[in-house]
Amino acid sequence: GVHCSVLSTENHHSSFAIGQKFQLDDVIEAQQFDRDILSAIFQVAREMEEIEKNSPGSQVLKGYLMATLFYEPSTRTRLSFESAMKRLGGEVLTTENAREFSSAAKGETLEDTIRTVEGYSDIIVMRHFEGGAAKRAAATAGIPVINAGDGPGQHPTQALLDVYTIEREIGRLDGIRVGLVGDLANGRTVRSLAYLLSKYQDVKIYFVSPEVVKMKDDIKDYLKSKGVKWEESVDLMEVASKCDVVYQTRIQKERFGERIDLYEEARGKYIVDRNVLGAMQKHAVVMHPLPRLDEITVEVDGDPRAAYFRQAKNGLYIRMALLKLLLVGW
Amino acid sequence: GVHCSVLSTENHHSSFAIGQKFQLDDVIEAQQFDRDILSAIFQVAREMEEIEKNSPGSQVLKGYLMATLFYEPSTRTRLSFESAMKRLGGEVLTTENAREFSSAAKGETLEDTIRTVEGYSDIIVMRHFEGGAAKRAAATAGIPVINAGDGPGQHPTQALLDVYTIEREIGRLDGIRVGLVGDLANGRTVRSLAYLLSKYQDVKIYFVSPEVVKMKDDIKDYLKSKGVKWEESVDLMEVASKCDVVYQTRIQKERFGERIDLYEEARGKYIVDRNVLGAMQKHAVVMHPLPRLDEITVEVDGDPRAAYFRQAKNGLYIRMALLKLLLVGW
Amino acid sequence: GVHCSVLSTENHHSSFAIGQKFQLDDVIEAQQFDRDILSAIFQVAREMEEIEKNSPGSQVLKGYLMATLFYEPSTRTRLSFESAMKRLGGEVLTTENAREFSSAAKGETLEDTIRTVEGYSDIIVMRHFEGGAAKRAAATAGIPVINAGDGPGQHPTQALLDVYTIEREIGRLDGIRVGLVGDLANGRTVRSLAYLLSKYQDVKIYFVSPEVVKMKDDIKDYLKSKGVKWEESVDLMEVASKCDVVYQTRIQKERFGERIDLYEEARGKYIVDRNVLGAMQKHAVVMHPLPRLDEITVEVDGDPRAAYFRQAKNGLYIRMALLKLLLVGW
Repeated sequence: GVHCSVLSTENHHSSFAIGQKFQLDDVIEAQQFDRDILSAIFQVAREMEEIEKNSPGSQVLKGYLMATLFYEPSTRTRLSFESAMKRLGGEVLTTENAREFSSAAKGETLEDTIRTVEGYSDIIVMRHFEGGAAKRAAATAGIPVINAGDGPGQHPTQALLDVYTIEREIGRLDGIRVGLVGDLANGRTVRSLAYLLSKYQDVKIYFVSPEVVKMKDDIKDYLKSKGVKWEESVDLMEVASKCDVVYQTRIQKERFGERIDLYEEARGKYIVDRNVLGAMQKHAVVMHPLPRLDEITVEVDGDPRAAYFRQAKNGLYIRMALLKLLLVGW
Repeated sequence: GVHCSVLSTENHHSSFAIGQKFQLDDVIEAQQFDRDILSAIFQVAREMEEIEKNSPGSQVLKGYLMATLFYEPSTRTRLSFESAMKRLGGEVLTTENAREFSSAAKGETLEDTIRTVEGYSDIIVMRHFEGGAAKRAAATAGIPVINAGDGPGQHPTQALLDVYTIEREIGRLDGIRVGLVGDLANGRTVRSLAYLLSKYQDVKIYFVSPEVVKMKDDIKDYLKSKGVKWEESVDLMEVASKCDVVYQTRIQKERFGERIDLYEEARGKYIVDRNVLGAMQKHAVVMHPLPRLDEITVEVDGDPRAAYFRQAKNGLYIRMALLKLLLVGW
Repeated sequence: GVHCSVLSTENHHSSFAIGQKFQLDDVIEAQQFDRDILSAIFQVAREMEEIEKNSPGSQVLKGYLMATLFYEPSTRTRLSFESAMKRLGGEVLTTENAREFSSAAKGETLEDTIRTVEGYSDIIVMRHFEGGAAKRAAATAGIPVINAGDGPGQHPTQALLDVYTIEREIGRLDGIRVGLVGDLANGRTVRSLAYLLSKYQDVKIYFVSPEVVKMKDDIKDYLKSKGVKWEESVDLMEVASKCDVVYQTRIQKERFGERIDLYEEARGKYIVDRNVLGAMQKHAVVMHPLPRLDEITVEVDGDPRAAYFRQAKNGLYIRMALLKLLLVGW
């Protein structure tokens, strides 16, 4: 079942010591993580970066079997998890199109599917089209479940890799200045990121988005309640000059339905290009959850501050860390 | 090619001794198995249940490659075979959608496809939409072929896991009382099960089904010729009280075509619920080949006599046993 | 990036010695290979034929991860590469349907996809529907890329396995007589083969094809410029009697559009059957890139000169050789 971590701050060293059990049974939502466990997970992710081919570390999950149960296709996320498992010596059972296997096809419930698949594997990574599906799966399964995105709901490993990337690129999380740009209304990525950033001190967030896809009030209120400063702006250049991180996102056409005119207007409004780079500080970086269309121009790619492909790679290390922690502990 | 076992009863010990060659070249249909070889296979399956991660037993198929050639999707069966192969240290080549690879797409014959795939792998597990396809594949291939279901034809590993489950749950097969419930006309599962049960002594089978999907005469005649007692009943409660096994099946909507009214009538007729459980004996169990819709209510799941998820898991052990036997022998 | 081999002929022994780096960074097109490197690659392929299960040679790619990025399905080619990787102890990340992952779905460029996937794997095998896609991928990737067919463009591993098969079957390449039969206008296979054969001495090629799918002038002119003799013929029996290799190909229906009549006429024109076999010399062989329809009758299959399934198997050894060479060198 879902297990929300309750960690006493005094004994982190022993809680996270090698050989200890991981505090979570499943990874379902960003809310499960506090800054202490994040810090410990990031430490493991950093060790994952150092693992060499055919070293003992590369065999830590030998004999374990991961089932990737994807009810909607997401090749990027699936490959990242499968690469993570195999980099640690584990094996994978793949279902790119689990929908055929499910209620949609013959009327089987998600719970029954999970009870069958848990008989064949040691951990389930699930992508689903319905919010809350991951929680239901975790409540049923006797083995760990990782949520790889459930509809409009959560995608916690993306949130973790974003925060990990900021720490790796900038060197700290307290005192960070982040500009969230683009589709702030529909993007679960930026919403989860705002949520996790609230765990750090003296954070400032700038929202830069077309009018139709502005950040919603629930997140704004949440940040306020946690003492996180935020500000809305229509001036990307000015925000870029102040931030440590410019986090650009894709305007999602599918959210606009018939209103192609609104989509086209929103899409062209805030582009990260050479000019934006020029306004940014030397130590600052550009991030993006990918895939990108033209909201970051390709001329930016060659700049060392373009961090989005390193960010994608960090997803590998975060997922290696989580698989290792859930299956064999600290 | 297909090889039907002809076993002399006097020398089982030596025939099934460790290191001996398996008696079958391929697994195509339930008719290939007699009670002696079933008993020996079940013994191997039981050993498979005990294999621990990274033990020598978990590496018995290291270096072997299985091709899952599925001309129609069946994620449940595919995952079960792939898990079995990987639990024994083997590797897998997957085709979820071999139909594109076949005559349907460019006009290649099944025989040509098999001749190509046998060059890439050590064993072929095939699911096909045409009855008899597995036999044709086995006749062509120089490597073992396992039939994972061929259209309206056979699905022998399902039949084996059903019998294995009865033995594991009840402790014996001679003298068993089994109630077959639901769609007895179209379900290849119950037909194969009736066939295999006829190999045991003093078996009694009860048929409980809606009028439109009654057990056909060929199986009834076959059972009679083998001295198996059977009885038709419309009273599920009474049958449940007498049986060791209540084997429920799904009414298959797709068999009713336009006659949704007949489907709805048949579907609601015999449900295994708390009341049926109440009538059952303490040692008896409920089985189901899965997926289930509402022909077993979820309130039954928590009862220790609900054996259907254990049954699904037994499929893993039976398939591990068959892969091991076909590739490296007893 | 694409690296075209420039080999000085004097120091082959040292260039191809065990432990040396492979001369190519990627395998994109047949033009990258000269006869010296082909000869050295074929030597490695021959060693691949001898590798036994669980021998040290079967573990030479242990710890390496190959991503099969297929933008159009080609199960035959995909399974061949995946089998090759696994036969050498490597692991595989599969995408049967990368098109969903690409610009076609959300508008991501091929270059962005490659930058992501190279973070998850050690080598990329790509099939694409657009000519030139493999070159673009190789120019982006920091890891090796193998072209597994890019639209109307190249399919270099097929060309290599064809030449390898001729050498294995006939024992030499200089002085060879090859009849290319069937669709010579559209088949990239025969075009690449003609190209590679021009690297050998005293080669003679016969073109036998229906009028509508004759070999195009560019290849004819190329062969002439390289001193390769060629001849067009309408008499398959006579050509068969002179050749070492009868290379038959499928008439591709999809190239004829509405003109089914022209397709049917072309299709029935040149069939390799018992009569053609009868005209062939004892040492000669029949080859075909597969799949075949009825352009070679099944009665030919049993003749030892029917080399097409051995040819398919040779694809495995060539791909094992290339994977080994690109990842760990000579």
